[in-house]
Amino acid sequence: MTTGAGSEQFTRPRGRAPKRVVLLGATGSIGRSTVDLLMRDPESYSVAAIAGGRDHAALARTALAVKAEFVAIRDEDGYAALKEALSGTNIQVAAGREAVIEAATREADLVVSAIVGAAGVEPTHAALSLGRAVALANKECLVCAGAPFMRMAHDKNARLLPIDSEHNAIFQALGGEDVSRIEKMTITASGGPFRSWSKEAIAAATVEQALNHPNWAMGPKNTIDSATLMNKGLELIEAHHIFGVPAEKLDVIVHPQSIVHGLVSFADGSVTAGLARPDMRVPIAHCLAYPERIETPAPRLDLVALGALTFEKPDLERFPALGLALDAMRAGGGLPTVLNAANEIAVEAFLSGRIGFSGIAAHVADALEAALLDGTAREPATVEDALAIDHIVRERSRGALAMNQASGMLTLQ
Amino acid sequence: MTTGAGSEQFTRPRGRAPKRVVLLGATGSIGRSTVDLLMRDPESYSVAAIAGGRDHAALARTALAVKAEFVAIRDEDGYAALKEALSGTNIQVAAGREAVIEAATREADLVVSAIVGAAGVEPTHAALSLGRAVALANKECLVCAGAPFMRMAHDKNARLLPIDSEHNAIFQALGGEDVSRIEKMTITASGGPFRSWSKEAIAAATVEQALNHPNWAMGPKNTIDSATLMNKGLELIEAHHIFGVPAEKLDVIVHPQSIVHGLVSFADGSVTAGLARPDMRVPIAHCLAYPERIETPAPRLDLVALGALTFEKPDLERFPALGLALDAMRAGGGLPTVLNAANEIAVEAFLSGRIGFSGIAAHVADALEAALLDGTAREPATVEDALAIDHIVRERSRGALAMNQASGMLTLQ
Repeated sequence: MTTGAGSEQFTRPRGRAPKRVVLLGATGSIGRSTVDLLMRDPESYSVAAIAGGRDHAALARTALAVKAEFVAIRDEDGYAALKEALSGTNIQVAAGREAVIEAATREADLVVSAIVGAAGVEPTHAALSLGRAVALANKECLVCAGAPFMRMAHDKNARLLPIDSEHNAIFQALGGEDVSRIEKMTITASGGPFRSWSKEAIAAATVEQALNHPNWAMGPKNTIDSATLMNKGLELIEAHHIFGVPAEKLDVIVHPQSIVHGLVSFADGSVTAGLARPDMRVPIAHCLAYPERIETPAPRLDLVALGALTFEKPDLERFPALGLALDAMRAGGGLPTVLNAANEIAVEAFLSGRIGFSGIAAHVADALEAALLDGTAREPATVEDALAIDHIVRERSRGALAMNQASGMLTLQ
Repeated sequence: MTTGAGSEQFTRPRGRAPKRVVLLGATGSIGRSTVDLLMRDPESYSVAAIAGGRDHAALARTALAVKAEFVAIRDEDGYAALKEALSGTNIQVAAGREAVIEAATREADLVVSAIVGAAGVEPTHAALSLGRAVALANKECLVCAGAPFMRMAHDKNARLLPIDSEHNAIFQALGGEDVSRIEKMTITASGGPFRSWSKEAIAAATVEQALNHPNWAMGPKNTIDSATLMNKGLELIEAHHIFGVPAEKLDVIVHPQSIVHGLVSFADGSVTAGLARPDMRVPIAHCLAYPERIETPAPRLDLVALGALTFEKPDLERFPALGLALDAMRAGGGLPTVLNAANEIAVEAFLSGRIGFSGIAAHVADALEAALLDGTAREPATVEDALAIDHIVRERSRGALAMNQASGMLTLQ
């Protein structure tokens, strides 16, 4: 199947074996966009395995659509329904944590790691340990377990391709150039829905207001992170690990149009940038086809129609979460792990109405301080270590925020 | 010599032989900037030869400053003074057309081709014919003799690095990716001093007004070409040849801040761009060091300080020279050669007050029409052919514009 006039030159040359893909997190937002692209070019891709969490009906539909060889569902309660839905096909079915790891480690040319949250770390790490190329959308691999995760990638000479639009833009802007030659690496932030709000107005923001992101359609957790600017802090930590760039060379600027996603500045004064309309199919397609290119139906960039691209300095006073993330990145050790876990629980608390918007950053600050005092902020030596710290901090944060609720105190300052 | 803290990692590793450079056009604007950069890092570069046109005093100073092994002066009348100025040194001196070719063909790792005008074609072509890597600032090689020039580069597997800021930005944005995969290649135009002027006001523009370029300090010919937008037409023709991109994939947009110089759009919706402050030392340094990087003292890009980058569609009605260049590029054959030669003579006539500003495009249109009628617009088979067409058109344009003057008619419509 080709995708319009002139597409022949962009698809894989005929007669070449299809690229074997594993898709972890097949039913989430990134997973669905990946499936959309795979189905546009079935001659170029074959799907070795897919994995999902709970939605057995969506997993079954996806498995049939992409002709997956193997399907794993993490939730064992979904096994029977999934098995039933795929009866009479050749598709193998398995359930549980081990089944997801089996999916991740099936023979493949590319593993798309799009499971959300800490659950994505173990299977992605298992794929890396076999030297698989990984297209990475899972944040926790780098934010929670960055150092040991990248050590494994390096030891196994496994290629990592970033799916996040900012990191993908930077990967493309780098063009294979050695990172040691760069002077600065910059990611952009839309600024979120509160970009022009006062500190007081932000503190009083409702869940509905915080979920109203101007440019990107994302899940609620990521949308809240975009409103606090914590997402940019997490992305800087990711960039630090995936590109091996020292913290002091990383920068973030606010760019409300979300067109320029990342920039690389070189010692001679040259700057290269990655741009695209905000559509996740663009970076996903880049990763799927790399080092070639495939066509996507994503709308094309039209700078004349846009008219202007604007840039501002982020305000760390109105958006303290970004400052906390910068501090955690610079201090290193286990602080990014702590930051990420505490933030996730605080965002849950905000979404369920237990704390106010400014309570998110306040809670993360408390968690970082507590971790520094009791040694939880030590550098995790292994991915398992990092996941253990993550677990401890989450439990502690849940406890702290439950107490908050019990005493009727909403952290609004 | 290093150029500030932290520069060690950007200069060539110690112990490696310096890169041997030939600099053609050493006393012009690009030549002087090149010398500035070479002198900042004398351990990394040795200068095999320099060549210049007439300015024997500047050539002698430059030869001493960069410790050139060989100096060629095109104007034979300057030989004695140059020889005298360099007496008592080991620097070899020669004069005349053949001497410049000798400079171009001296053993070297990189030939910087910065002679302005048709005089630059023959020596640059001679360097290519030996397979030398060429950093190209001379426009005529590609605009006047593009097809045969690129055939030679291809046959000899000679690397061409573009010094022009737009093409250099695109070269960096491409990052080595195959041009067959691109969907669009875009260069930007500042819009020149008449960007927001009415058609009538532009027609009545004075030489002084046309020479007042908002962003770049260039010679008068290039500054007038920026005011008519002919320079962007010539640059599209250059891009067509140097990158091997079909005319229909080439685009130009107006970007008054001159920060984004070129963009590459891929089939997946990704766009990469090359940015820099308008300072020619940036692309020159990129070419000198390629595939490595050297530090320059060029001011760094600060998007927050700039605030906004804006983009507009070029107006072919107010700037008909750009339309003529697009037509010539699309029609191909010898038309770009005719366009370039007729434009150069028309710009001279404008600068000396013999025709009005709008007379430049009017004359070029007449010249293209005449060439189509009498066969001068045939595809030049060789570089010599192209230079012969160039010569014929210049003579014819001089004649036509002299008649114009004699009859007292200023072409102002």
